[in-house]
Amino acid sequence: MERLLKKCQIRSQLVRECLAECLGVYVLILFGCGSVAQVVTTRDTKGQYLSINLGFALGVTFGVFVSRGVSGAHLNPAVSLSLCVLGKHPWKKLPFYTFFQVLGAFLAAATVCLQYYDAIQTFSGGKLEVTGPNATAGIFCTYPADYLSVWGGIVDQVIGTAALLLCVLALGDRRNTPVPDALQPVLVGAAVLVIGISMGSNSGYALNPARDFGPRLFTYIAGWGPDVFRAGGGWWWVPIVAPCLGALLGCLVYQLMVEAHHPPPPAERQDGRQEDVEGKADVEME
Amino acid sequence: MERLLKKCQIRSQLVRECLAECLGVYVLILFGCGSVAQVVTTRDTKGQYLSINLGFALGVTFGVFVSRGVSGAHLNPAVSLSLCVLGKHPWKKLPFYTFFQVLGAFLAAATVCLQYYDAIQTFSGGKLEVTGPNATAGIFCTYPADYLSVWGGIVDQVIGTAALLLCVLALGDRRNTPVPDALQPVLVGAAVLVIGISMGSNSGYALNPARDFGPRLFTYIAGWGPDVFRAGGGWWWVPIVAPCLGALLGCLVYQLMVEAHHPPPPAERQDGRQEDVEGKADVEME
Amino acid sequence: MERLLKKCQIRSQLVRECLAECLGVYVLILFGCGSVAQVVTTRDTKGQYLSINLGFALGVTFGVFVSRGVSGAHLNPAVSLSLCVLGKHPWKKLPFYTFFQVLGAFLAAATVCLQYYDAIQTFSGGKLEVTGPNATAGIFCTYPADYLSVWGGIVDQVIGTAALLLCVLALGDRRNTPVPDALQPVLVGAAVLVIGISMGSNSGYALNPARDFGPRLFTYIAGWGPDVFRAGGGWWWVPIVAPCLGALLGCLVYQLMVEAHHPPPPAERQDGRQEDVEGKADVEME
Amino acid sequence: MERLLKKCQIRSQLVRECLAECLGVYVLILFGCGSVAQVVTTRDTKGQYLSINLGFALGVTFGVFVSRGVSGAHLNPAVSLSLCVLGKHPWKKLPFYTFFQVLGAFLAAATVCLQYYDAIQTFSGGKLEVTGPNATAGIFCTYPADYLSVWGGIVDQVIGTAALLLCVLALGDRRNTPVPDALQPVLVGAAVLVIGISMGSNSGYALNPARDFGPRLFTYIAGWGPDVFRAGGGWWWVPIVAPCLGALLGCLVYQLMVEAHHPPPPAERQDGRQEDVEGKADVEME
Repeated sequence: MERLLKKCQIRSQLVRECLAECLGVYVLILFGCGSVAQVVTTRDTKGQYLSINLGFALGVTFGVFVSRGVSGAHLNPAVSLSLCVLGKHPWKKLPFYTFFQVLGAFLAAATVCLQYYDAIQTFSGGKLEVTGPNATAGIFCTYPADYLSVWGGIVDQVIGTAALLLCVLALGDRRNTPVPDALQPVLVGAAVLVIGISMGSNSGYALNPARDFGPRLFTYIAGWGPDVFRAGGGWWWVPIVAPCLGALLGCLVYQLMVEAHHPPPPAERQDGRQEDVEGKADVEME
Repeated sequence: MERLLKKCQIRSQLVRECLAECLGVYVLILFGCGSVAQVVTTRDTKGQYLSINLGFALGVTFGVFVSRGVSGAHLNPAVSLSLCVLGKHPWKKLPFYTFFQVLGAFLAAATVCLQYYDAIQTFSGGKLEVTGPNATAGIFCTYPADYLSVWGGIVDQVIGTAALLLCVLALGDRRNTPVPDALQPVLVGAAVLVIGISMGSNSGYALNPARDFGPRLFTYIAGWGPDVFRAGGGWWWVPIVAPCLGALLGCLVYQLMVEAHHPPPPAERQDGRQEDVEGKADVEME
Repeated sequence: MERLLKKCQIRSQLVRECLAECLGVYVLILFGCGSVAQVVTTRDTKGQYLSINLGFALGVTFGVFVSRGVSGAHLNPAVSLSLCVLGKHPWKKLPFYTFFQVLGAFLAAATVCLQYYDAIQTFSGGKLEVTGPNATAGIFCTYPADYLSVWGGIVDQVIGTAALLLCVLALGDRRNTPVPDALQPVLVGAAVLVIGISMGSNSGYALNPARDFGPRLFTYIAGWGPDVFRAGGGWWWVPIVAPCLGALLGCLVYQLMVEAHHPPPPAERQDGRQEDVEGKADVEME
Repeated sequence: MERLLKKCQIRSQLVRECLAECLGVYVLILFGCGSVAQVVTTRDTKGQYLSINLGFALGVTFGVFVSRGVSGAHLNPAVSLSLCVLGKHPWKKLPFYTFFQVLGAFLAAATVCLQYYDAIQTFSGGKLEVTGPNATAGIFCTYPADYLSVWGGIVDQVIGTAALLLCVLALGDRRNTPVPDALQPVLVGAAVLVIGISMGSNSGYALNPARDFGPRLFTYIAGWGPDVFRAGGGWWWVPIVAPCLGALLGCLVYQLMVEAHHPPPPAERQDGRQEDVEGKADVEME
């Protein structure tokens, strides 16, 4: 067995990182969307909104545990983008990371659909609908509340993702409170939990283009049809664009309010090695 | 990008601390009041009282993570005051800390109002009311239960804040159970969680003058009007005064029951350096 | 201030331990019974059974944090008794520990009653009753479910306390999984949480003679009258006697299944110092 | 007392491991099935689906704490099997581990039945039924939802157990994110929590042949009769077979996506000692 596995060993660092990102997002969506599926198909009898919040939070936690040592556990194109802008991640890796993040989310949505196939069929009477009392598309990707305007949705996603990055940057800033490696996945999960509890009702806190677009694509192909792109007044592009803006805003706020003002560490004064330390310190994000 | 940020670097320790306190309280209120907004505007369908407790608890946790390494994460004028009385914080910083704590809470309330603008408009039918079934002022600051007398409210806030300080002092007392730095924010959050679970129903466990007054001021300006000061029999001053009394009481109890009786550490006997150790140990509070 | 506190310094180890036990149980009951008061007086609108479980769990956690470095945080006469039987605590301290544990619970019940005075008056219409729809005695101490026989109650408390000791001994056994000091209070709280979730409905999981008898005595004096001893078929002695039996049973099971069979540590073979290590390792209990 | 215990000391490593596995599964089922008993017999008033999820999660956590230092805390024949296949556990121990795991689950089911005897009698009117509104067999072992086909059930259990192993292997992989020993039991419990939240509604997430078969055997003997094997279209064998397949699938996925591609640690290049490190690193599983 072990020899067989050794034959499969991949030595390319980028391929390893892409596989880890793919598996990390897969785990995140498997647990996250799975918890929505459980709540929806049991009509709130075996779960509630809080269990969805916990599902995504622990999904992030284990998604990070699965991939952090290999790829840094971005699990989110908006996070990868911010790190590129901050100079902490190479731009040329961005499209690869993004593709495999979306792929992981797509595959996880397919798995959830397989696992809940009987339940979805029974719940929906066999009709895969995007809106209405028996809608099941909301299991997989986000749709806005009826009252939400497009601008309101953009503001919601920008604030939510900015809050996520604020927390994640603070957790990774070793010149603020240093957090041991093993607690980072748990605390990033806690950040997602509190965002779900405090910013979830407007539009389902996607905060992550891959988390939303991968499963949406799956539902489009798997039988929910073009309504998944039409519903909510053509909502689909908001959870792709707004999280990227929000992530950048969150970085900017944390830099301007806290990180930029840290006194330089002793090491830097002499030989500029601080760069490295900071680079490593901040890569552990959702 | 990095060079740009370096230009913005602020070297004044006090300004850095004030910015950190401001951002810390901002995060606390953003998540705390956000969780109330979610429960209120969805009429308990996407959250419940427990999710509000979790929202404030994790709000405190991440508020502490964001600011602890810079300002010690007081996040609460009553805590700053107690530390001044205990001789662990300079009196001259107190007004600055307090002002920026209130400012952070004010700005966070504005952000929550922006994020939930559509939801609040739809929920309240466009009328911003302080009392009644469609009241939305309770999203931002605390109001007492109908049955509560003013004296009952004072007692409630004194006991609640004393309990908070008891927990926070025990967590920071390295001669009791030493708690690693990275766990302090989580455990202070847990203290706020249990206070919300066991002392929340009388008057909403403000425990913190900044947490209550900043958002109240915002609602006064933003359209809820002078009722925010009149409601509950002129309740507004109770969550300002009582938490300060409670914090002092909590300090006194912990000192008299535990901390004052610790045997002196070996170091002190010789050169009096114990002062420093204790000073540092206790600054990590909500 | 500091000089004043130094004057109050108590040097007797036993008095310090008794004060710490008293404060520890005070915190436990303040949060625990407070959470019941919140659920009862709001008729389940600001809490639910799970929040009571969390209240007692976090009450234990902070009770342990408050006292562990001084007294070992027994917080429970049944735990103190077991440690005496196991030879890890001096018998002559047992009555002092027990008295101050009961005193702390009594004082905490009084505090909860003060904090919820208006709420209890409004809820009960001014009548302090032990049974019926407006009963409020259950806020303070435990009463059995209607269906429970006395034997069933004894079995319930024996199994529950045995489970508690099993968990607590495993957490303190450094030759099994070693647990850092700062996590012990959290994990002992988690043990109380899971017992409340899985063994709470029969008779309210007292598990602790002090937790039950102190508040019961308070309600007897404070106006609920002799019914607090008569209700449930004279239930009051069960949560005093059965937890002691259960604690001993739990110790026996853990010893016979795990601890007695650990291979002797290398140190012991040479100089018998193992005794000390084990003694220390196990004192950190609820 | 101590001398008495020394006389009982067992020196056989295998017997010690079997006792620890037995006690570990006992704790897991005592808390897990206890939480179901509480929810069922109080008709959801003292618990909800989330409290069952928490009961099993913390049951696993304390089951691991109780046994990890002695036996590695497999607590699950499917985990033991996977470790044998991966070459990290000797095949000859497999039948012993399995037998004592099932025995622990059987004894725990008997204890839960004893503790909830009065409650079950009152709830069911004295009739021990497997299906219908007063069914109580579901307290002890899993039955599929009405809509679930046998194939759907197999898929459900395979995916669930694969997800469990993915998480457990990632937690134990020291070349990914290293997790301290004391956090492993907590995080394995968190994995079980999120699986219960996201994959519990189809068939009750057994994930573990011992967890399901031991209690089922108990109900068969204790009066529920042959229906426990007939119900759900002869469901009983699915939670025995499918978790074994799922565990192997989870191992394979984690190996192929992450673990097989880790660069060899420096030590291995020279003397092949890496084997040992990996062997130890991965034994700490549910």
